[in-house]
Amino acid sequence: MPGANEKKDCVMGVDFGGTKILAGVFDEKFECIARARVSTKADRGADEVIGRIARCVREAVDECDLDLKQIKAIGIGAPGAVDSESGKVIFAPNLGWNDVPLKKELEKLLDAPVFLENDCNVCTLGVYEVELKARPRDMAGIFLGTGIGGGLILQGKLHSGFNRTAGEIGHMVIEVGGPKCGCGNKGCFEALASRTAIFRRIKEAVKQGQKTVLTEMLGAELEDLRSGDLRKAIKRGDTFVEHIIEEAAEYTGIAAANLINLFNPEVIVIGGGLMEQLEEEMLSIIVETAMDYAMPGTTKGIEIIATRLGDDAGITGGAVLARKHVK
Amino acid sequence: MPGANEKKDCVMGVDFGGTKILAGVFDEKFECIARARVSTKADRGADEVIGRIARCVREAVDECDLDLKQIKAIGIGAPGAVDSESGKVIFAPNLGWNDVPLKKELEKLLDAPVFLENDCNVCTLGVYEVELKARPRDMAGIFLGTGIGGGLILQGKLHSGFNRTAGEIGHMVIEVGGPKCGCGNKGCFEALASRTAIFRRIKEAVKQGQKTVLTEMLGAELEDLRSGDLRKAIKRGDTFVEHIIEEAAEYTGIAAANLINLFNPEVIVIGGGLMEQLEEEMLSIIVETAMDYAMPGTTKGIEIIATRLGDDAGITGGAVLARKHVK
Repeated sequence: MPGANEKKDCVMGVDFGGTKILAGVFDEKFECIARARVSTKADRGADEVIGRIARCVREAVDECDLDLKQIKAIGIGAPGAVDSESGKVIFAPNLGWNDVPLKKELEKLLDAPVFLENDCNVCTLGVYEVELKARPRDMAGIFLGTGIGGGLILQGKLHSGFNRTAGEIGHMVIEVGGPKCGCGNKGCFEALASRTAIFRRIKEAVKQGQKTVLTEMLGAELEDLRSGDLRKAIKRGDTFVEHIIEEAAEYTGIAAANLINLFNPEVIVIGGGLMEQLEEEMLSIIVETAMDYAMPGTTKGIEIIATRLGDDAGITGGAVLARKHVK
Repeated sequence: MPGANEKKDCVMGVDFGGTKILAGVFDEKFECIARARVSTKADRGADEVIGRIARCVREAVDECDLDLKQIKAIGIGAPGAVDSESGKVIFAPNLGWNDVPLKKELEKLLDAPVFLENDCNVCTLGVYEVELKARPRDMAGIFLGTGIGGGLILQGKLHSGFNRTAGEIGHMVIEVGGPKCGCGNKGCFEALASRTAIFRRIKEAVKQGQKTVLTEMLGAELEDLRSGDLRKAIKRGDTFVEHIIEEAAEYTGIAAANLINLFNPEVIVIGGGLMEQLEEEMLSIIVETAMDYAMPGTTKGIEIIATRLGDDAGITGGAVLARKHVK
């Protein structure tokens, strides 16, 4: 029934990641009325990837019988350092991008206003505006995945800081001299509790003779290891994997305590693929450790929760970002 | 010449510490026109200490030939956790105070409006409003002394957070499993780089046979060791003390990098007694380490500087706090 959505006041959110692109059309209540997904194919270069983002946007629009002209704005979260003002991706190591004018190129292809932000900032914005009805003044988002990203809402607004790079929670050093991080330093939170860090620790231990049901499940090389496999191993009573996950949860709790001591947000929301798969195993340890490490008197009434938006946090946040610019 | 200051629009700033109380009368340009100092005598109990604060205030007023009635407001920085709304010192381990209604008691004694904040927040406010003419949007203050405290200015305002306890930079964990901290945790920044941590490390090493000119200067027990002695020892070529101070500066640089990655403030100002004595030895190492540890692309244009307010940061900030309430 084309035309049914004609009068809807719609925006588009795009979650642009290193392996996949998700696009969602959102109505004025931030309900997702259509979505599309394409793979990123980052190795084909920036032009090709930008074309694929445009294709994903068009597919989502088509899915709900709208015309691109009816989309008031498009909000995109991109991995890496983003200059939201100029609309450029400054530095995205996962994509091999440097200084790519994503906003300008997409606006050319789509003839619609495009707004850009760092992916974890966008997820934080989505959780804040759509999931947290009570609208705390200050909130932090921590996203545990291949890497660890984050975002800060301060005094009700996404905090971007002087170089618009704030929220790099994954690169807070919490163990001076600890394991090497992708950023070149040692002991970053990301190097201790990301999926990459967890997988590295498991593979190293297996090489040194550690027994685990993971090798029964996936073979000695642990090829195609995923977060879900860790959950399955723990369910099957694998105390080695359980211990590794407990440790990652403790590091996450310490990082959360640091945020409580530093800026005392009312809510800390934890998301990302790792959290989605292992919430049951990790969340209570994260909360307990954070409350233990935070200074006495600083934690009263502060909540640490898992987001319910799951994989939709990015497109939802993109829609919020778009909506901020059309109001 | 009594009466000369009669028409001045004055406020009072008080720096209330564990060992001494400083009070300063400030004119409308935040020039200090008179000051007084008394010792705290914390062991005599809260009532006696509050009386001494009042005495110090009266002495400063008398010094500049004013009458207490001419002081529009009094701003006080107190050590520990402070509830600025209720005007209570919630928890101050250095004083042995729990839940002391300092604002109410002082207002009774002085018949003038009193405003209360955490001491390091007050110092940060003083540096921000009086020293930094360019008024950055976001700024962090780090104060290295017996402990380590801090304060955050976000979007032009002192950030206090949900439980009004934000800015506890000294209790950010940067070395999981590191040395024990007074707060009960391990590896806090304060346990690694405060004067207390530095003195502990020196005394432990001396006990284990480490040679240092400090023992020639102060005897084998290093009684009455002060920050200034460390500077003297370094000037005399003591490479052991130099190394200890370098290490503390590196930890401070890592803490500053964490703040850059998290909030990306335009300016980080470093103060406190330790910094005042050892700026020449520490500042360049702090800056270098911070720039090295912060994520690529996050540091452009960000300044890390030492405050010029020295011991006056507290009274100046107190005056700023007072002025905010009379405007």
